[in-house]
Amino acid sequence: MTKRLRVALAQPNFIVGDFEKNAEKILSYIKQAEKEDVDIIAFPEMAVPGYPPEDLLLKPQFLEKNMETISNIAKEVGDIVAIVGFIEVKEDIYNAAAVIYQHKIVDVYHKIFLPTYSVFDEDRYFSRGNRIPVYEVRECKVGVNICEDIWYPDGPAHFQALAGAELIINISASPFHTGKRAYRERMIATRGMDCLAFVAYVNLVGGQDELVFDGGSFVVSPHGELIARAKLFEEDLLIADLDISSVLRIRLHDPRIRKEKGYEENKIERIFVAPYKPPKKETVKPRITPPMSEEEEILHALIVGTRDYVNKNGFKKVLIGLSGGIDSSLVAAIATEALGPERVVGVLMPSQYTSRESIEDAEELAKNLGIQTYTVPITEIFETFKKEMRRCVWGNMPEDVTEENIQARIRGNILMAISNKFGWLVLTTGNKSEMSCGYATLYGDMAGGFAVIKDVMKTMVYRVAQCYNKLKGREIIPKRVFIKPPSAELRPGQKDEDTLPPYEILDPILKAYVEEDRPYKDIVAMGFDPELVKRVIRMVDRNEYKRRQAPPGVKITPRAFGKDRRLPITNHFRPFE
Amino acid sequence: MTKRLRVALAQPNFIVGDFEKNAEKILSYIKQAEKEDVDIIAFPEMAVPGYPPEDLLLKPQFLEKNMETISNIAKEVGDIVAIVGFIEVKEDIYNAAAVIYQHKIVDVYHKIFLPTYSVFDEDRYFSRGNRIPVYEVRECKVGVNICEDIWYPDGPAHFQALAGAELIINISASPFHTGKRAYRERMIATRGMDCLAFVAYVNLVGGQDELVFDGGSFVVSPHGELIARAKLFEEDLLIADLDISSVLRIRLHDPRIRKEKGYEENKIERIFVAPYKPPKKETVKPRITPPMSEEEEILHALIVGTRDYVNKNGFKKVLIGLSGGIDSSLVAAIATEALGPERVVGVLMPSQYTSRESIEDAEELAKNLGIQTYTVPITEIFETFKKEMRRCVWGNMPEDVTEENIQARIRGNILMAISNKFGWLVLTTGNKSEMSCGYATLYGDMAGGFAVIKDVMKTMVYRVAQCYNKLKGREIIPKRVFIKPPSAELRPGQKDEDTLPPYEILDPILKAYVEEDRPYKDIVAMGFDPELVKRVIRMVDRNEYKRRQAPPGVKITPRAFGKDRRLPITNHFRPFE
Repeated sequence: MTKRLRVALAQPNFIVGDFEKNAEKILSYIKQAEKEDVDIIAFPEMAVPGYPPEDLLLKPQFLEKNMETISNIAKEVGDIVAIVGFIEVKEDIYNAAAVIYQHKIVDVYHKIFLPTYSVFDEDRYFSRGNRIPVYEVRECKVGVNICEDIWYPDGPAHFQALAGAELIINISASPFHTGKRAYRERMIATRGMDCLAFVAYVNLVGGQDELVFDGGSFVVSPHGELIARAKLFEEDLLIADLDISSVLRIRLHDPRIRKEKGYEENKIERIFVAPYKPPKKETVKPRITPPMSEEEEILHALIVGTRDYVNKNGFKKVLIGLSGGIDSSLVAAIATEALGPERVVGVLMPSQYTSRESIEDAEELAKNLGIQTYTVPITEIFETFKKEMRRCVWGNMPEDVTEENIQARIRGNILMAISNKFGWLVLTTGNKSEMSCGYATLYGDMAGGFAVIKDVMKTMVYRVAQCYNKLKGREIIPKRVFIKPPSAELRPGQKDEDTLPPYEILDPILKAYVEEDRPYKDIVAMGFDPELVKRVIRMVDRNEYKRRQAPPGVKITPRAFGKDRRLPITNHFRPFE
Repeated sequence: MTKRLRVALAQPNFIVGDFEKNAEKILSYIKQAEKEDVDIIAFPEMAVPGYPPEDLLLKPQFLEKNMETISNIAKEVGDIVAIVGFIEVKEDIYNAAAVIYQHKIVDVYHKIFLPTYSVFDEDRYFSRGNRIPVYEVRECKVGVNICEDIWYPDGPAHFQALAGAELIINISASPFHTGKRAYRERMIATRGMDCLAFVAYVNLVGGQDELVFDGGSFVVSPHGELIARAKLFEEDLLIADLDISSVLRIRLHDPRIRKEKGYEENKIERIFVAPYKPPKKETVKPRITPPMSEEEEILHALIVGTRDYVNKNGFKKVLIGLSGGIDSSLVAAIATEALGPERVVGVLMPSQYTSRESIEDAEELAKNLGIQTYTVPITEIFETFKKEMRRCVWGNMPEDVTEENIQARIRGNILMAISNKFGWLVLTTGNKSEMSCGYATLYGDMAGGFAVIKDVMKTMVYRVAQCYNKLKGREIIPKRVFIKPPSAELRPGQKDEDTLPPYEILDPILKAYVEEDRPYKDIVAMGFDPELVKRVIRMVDRNEYKRRQAPPGVKITPRAFGKDRRLPITNHFRPFE
């Protein structure tokens, strides 16, 4: 008997808490797969409620609605096996996968390994599962598990293989950061080789607050070869025909799974799901979406993260302060890519310190993008402000950073006023180098609803901007923006380098300290000036309070500011003492 | 042989990451206890690093420093048993208690129950312990465990009692919220009765970002009676003589512990710590600090939380926008109580909409408190702003909430400018009712470093303010401030009730929805108008983005906005649909 399974991996873009729309999407993918004669279709982790629901999980009404929704979905499922992520509510709550066939939930798998690190808090919510069943689908043995479960070499996949599973389906919601796709595929390939089984990995797609899910669902063979890969950063339905008969053949020649068999396999439940059907005559051609460069991945993550934040929160347009610098130029480009030029508005807010070049560059960028602009000079407001402050508070005290911050906050107020008047969302333009060092004005340039590039270091901002121009085939971000030295233009002749070390030196120090938690001595040993390292560490530590009040933005690194990095503000630890 | 133990519970105010100062404090309490001939002294959970260190626990250098510090402390401990909370770093990291005697760490207990709910994230960091030893101190049997451990009826205390423990010492770091002290004491009294043992509970004191620890360390007898209670919200060293001989006598008459004994007791390690010493002739008189009323507890929590945030973060003075309303009046009173009048500065920022009464009330309050004030009228800045916005952006469009927000943000800018010029901290004055409904301007009245009353509902603000006046014995907060209807004074004749339901109705709805996660139907069933409940829920849900950018403030309820309540911004769940 030839055993072949047609497997479909669906990677929809869900919305947290939108049970109706999520169910509609799930059902439309199921219908599509039924038409394509698919045997088994899998959806990402927590497909029904959307991911991550965070403390919505503590609301009984939310849980109820989720249970209603999964049972409504089940009613619509015909001659296809559907694996759908949801929350099972029993004596406790579980991160779960429903195995549905012929209008019935045949079984529910509970996630065993609950991630509680980085951005994850699953021990806060769920009880862990304690069953590792193997499902019988069309005479094939299939193991289902959830996300983190597959990251453990002795996790459920291992036991499912020992009990005969020929295909392991892992349903995931794995947030993007640079390098993760390759890392994930390498690990899953090894699991395939260890289990001597096919592994189908389905991932979510889309943005949810600070997280972006990059899709790229894929299938590997028992030899660890990539058989199919879905689109990156886009909704997709990936279909692949798997020659399940090959598994026994391979296991006969590579008997590791057979040799490891012990008593555990006998404890594993076998659950019958769907009867045998002869394989289809025509097989589906495998489709492998090519990978992207690092800069392209980041660019797409930023576009998707921005688009979904804006659309899912119901904003018609976005508003960006354009300074003529690289940061606001890239943010405007990303917004235009995400939403179209008619939904992006640029605001120029020149002062007496703004150079002619800056205005020209901002205007050229807006023209190239085809977006509308307003120009609101801040000089008169600023002068009135200074006059009143001198008169009422500080008399003839010399000007200092205070006056710089006043300008930034007047600009923040202007952007927010336009936002309030028209109901548009302000996008902020600060990068990760600035966020790390606190080189930004709270309630000034930090004012806004979404901080598009807050996790992108300045040197990477340039690289992504270059990648953008290259992909567009022309210099939409004007050449001069790349060349001129970065400046906040808040006092005559100001340059970033007056306050910060050059970004080529600063960024690797920040990466080592912020993203990798390297000790001070190790960073110095990397070849940096000890005094400079101390100064940078001090800046980072001192500005925790600013980051606490920053808007959310897209996570693109393994350690972003946000749920990822939870430091106290009140903190006397000095790593170099 | 008469067995008596002199036990000391130390509740110092530590600083997260200040290993030197924390060690100094620990040693000075140990010296003091040695002078008082104490047998055993206990310090709170994580005394050495300070609590909660959050992601500092992921920095190897931080962990090292903590290990160095505990071994330096051990060297100084003489003929007294000291139980000191720290982080043990071995093959993994543990939330631990060192049992120190005669310059040596005799044993280390590892916390078993790791709280991962509410503000706690301990599964993110620690491995759980798997040993439940009983210590022999002066011929007495002592069980040590940590915080959450004692909240489980079948936790380590239970097994320690079965193995003969006559005294259970629980070292805690238990954050304050209203009603928690009584709840805690009731539960521990029950544990004492269940274990038929003395229970000594030592708690931390002081503020750390959004948390306040309320001290009130105490001892209960095997009958569950309160024997001694330390000061509330203050550093203290509580000493009590415990008649350990009474435990056997009680167990002979009430044989539950004896009857429950099973094989587990034999698996429990007995560890010798300190030899017998005859009991002291004179016994220490038990001291029981009286409890406080709810309003007084809250007032003290706010004072301690504010004082510690300001001092531990090194600010000389604080700055408060005074509107003449109840919120800013209470915040100014709390700040003055916390820091003294010479460290508090009030700023009046009247506009064309500010009433004469408001200015008079603010000035009278400042006079009563003895604090300095500045007056910075915003009218001219506001007019310039409006003129420029009309000219450059919205022409003759009618005024709306935008112009109200512009005023609030001009005020935010003024406060932040003074903050920047002099290095003072801005305290914000929004209450929990406003924070819940988003009835506040982001970057306007929400601008500042610490939000003193952000977890206090408006109706409670009045009660706490009244309590304050009563404690001070005079109307420092002027009578009229209590009587006049609340108003933001951002347009002519504005009242809070134009936008919000009366606070007597709003606050219980908010409590039910925000603090108790009650479903919509249940709230309606409490007797509120369904449409009103919907409107309130909508306001709460829609303003998650504002709260995300709010400064930290003191948690005083079981569910504060902050680490306690982690909701997505992007969220389509509508609880009443």
